[in-house]
Amino acid sequence: MSRTILIIGIGAGNPEHMTVQAINALNRSDVLLIPTKGEEKAFLADMRRDICERYLTNEATRIHEYAVPKRRTDGSYDGGVNDWHHAIARIYEETILERSGPDDTIGLLVWGDPMLYDSTIRIVEHVRAAGRVAFELEVIPGITSIQALCASRKIALNRIGLPVQITTGRRLSEGWPEGTGDVVVMLDGVEAFRTVQDRDAEIHWGAYLGTPLEVTISGRLDEVAETISETRSRARQQNGWIMDAYLIRRRDGPETEGET
Amino acid sequence: MSRTILIIGIGAGNPEHMTVQAINALNRSDVLLIPTKGEEKAFLADMRRDICERYLTNEATRIHEYAVPKRRTDGSYDGGVNDWHHAIARIYEETILERSGPDDTIGLLVWGDPMLYDSTIRIVEHVRAAGRVAFELEVIPGITSIQALCASRKIALNRIGLPVQITTGRRLSEGWPEGTGDVVVMLDGVEAFRTVQDRDAEIHWGAYLGTPLEVTISGRLDEVAETISETRSRARQQNGWIMDAYLIRRRDGPETEGET
Ligand SMILES: C[S@@+](CC[C@H](N)C(=O)[O-])C[C@H]1O[C@@H](n2cnc3c(N)ncnc32)[C@H](O)[C@@H]1O
Ligand SMILES: C[S@@+](CC[C@H](N)C(=O)[O-])C[C@H]1O[C@@H](n2cnc3c(N)ncnc32)[C@H](O)[C@@H]1O
Repeated sequence: MSRTILIIGIGAGNPEHMTVQAINALNRSDVLLIPTKGEEKAFLADMRRDICERYLTNEATRIHEYAVPKRRTDGSYDGGVNDWHHAIARIYEETILERSGPDDTIGLLVWGDPMLYDSTIRIVEHVRAAGRVAFELEVIPGITSIQALCASRKIALNRIGLPVQITTGRRLSEGWPEGTGDVVVMLDGVEAFRTVQDRDAEIHWGAYLGTPLEVTISGRLDEVAETISETRSRARQQNGWIMDAYLIRRRDGPETEGET
Repeated sequence: MSRTILIIGIGAGNPEHMTVQAINALNRSDVLLIPTKGEEKAFLADMRRDICERYLTNEATRIHEYAVPKRRTDGSYDGGVNDWHHAIARIYEETILERSGPDDTIGLLVWGDPMLYDSTIRIVEHVRAAGRVAFELEVIPGITSIQALCASRKIALNRIGLPVQITTGRRLSEGWPEGTGDVVVMLDGVEAFRTVQDRDAEIHWGAYLGTPLEVTISGRLDEVAETISETRSRARQQNGWIMDAYLIRRRDGPETEGET
């Protein structure tokens, strides 16, 4: 007898990103735990609720929302990310013990895909390591924001046979990664695209992808960087928050042959 | 009045990878075009058929299978990839003109996600450029083999705040890409993981992910490389074909801080 934890990818903004596997996972859950992370994420919590309303048909499934404190990045929180994850793990642990029975299936809803710049898997492994609650784990993939971006712009991620790097705004702002002409940037709080030297590069930018607020801009970096920056600021101000991601392709990338 | 082409990602092996958006796209199609690419891909054609059987409820939708010649990589085909894509584009064009009316919606089923090492978008753009058939284009994302791998192994793709590179076996066999400790390898016909110097690295390997044939192996490269190689050869022989992908994480990758 043991609990089962399902980490369920719910897609990156469009409720129709939900897979059949994810819908089944929702309905296999005795309890769905929905973290809420402060005001600017209210929209995300709404999306999660919308998904439950659309796809949850199991009337026995309980939904429990709980607050997860947002990590302070103003310097006043002096632990590292790892300490932070351990703190969150304790909240998960408590919530699981309080809200679920020893044989229950617990669904955790994760934005996009749990594998991509998300720590739910890591945090759940901390809960396991603490040893106070035993469980089986299953991970269900979901459509990521990268896929939402490429689908919306109708573009391939890779050029034929070529590599692509997925990175963060912080990293890109430290310089273009070597050995690849194609870079996807996420978690960009610094508008790192403005620091890219090769103004001839092509950028495909998207914010609020998959949601009714979706906005995308594509073009040569030197022609659209300013517009993206302005659009970004305006949208951020209007909505109180922003989530954006982009692909930059340098024209001077290595050309080669491949199968597809 | 114009045709609509839907390029529909169907997931990487598990029919339950299908998203609600993809299911709706199937059912919006007047005709579904299913390419078949020679013997070893019969399994893939079966998967596509299975998906239609499960999810296609629109009785008016016609299904048309057509043969797409496999590119010869034995050297006897002397055109480049680009010529090859143009040749395929002519087959698409003919098939579209023959099999669909001027106002029809045409669904093209693509393995995984159309953005990832797949040329359907490029080929369809060649059809558009040829100017003999006009259409609107929509792309619907699907779960990729990378996501199927990470979900099956219950791992994150990225380490906290770190980049990851997606590349091909051919590229990896030319050397470890600079600036990243985490590499996903696809389209590997050369067992490039055997060429990685850092035997201390961790590998997560998976073949036939999401399908009933799924097999995965994780471990230190020096401990599991031989087993992967043997498993791969045996499976390939038994099934007549193989599709595998893997993630390699070098232990000496740069460590840093990030939000997730
Ligand atoms: C913590 S990461 C989570 C990523 C998520 N797991 C995924 O699969 O896309 C958050 C970052 O993802 C990107 N992102 C997520 N959803 C997005 C959306 N709907 N539109 C644009 N970017 C998005 C942004 O770069 C954001 O900073
Ligand atoms: C032409 S690419 C297509 C990739 C596909 N569009 C996707 O989204 O995964 C084919 C490569 O994808 C990987 N692949 C696709 N499906 C797979 C599966 N079910 N298991 C393992 N690898 C797979 C293999 O590396 C294979 O060589």
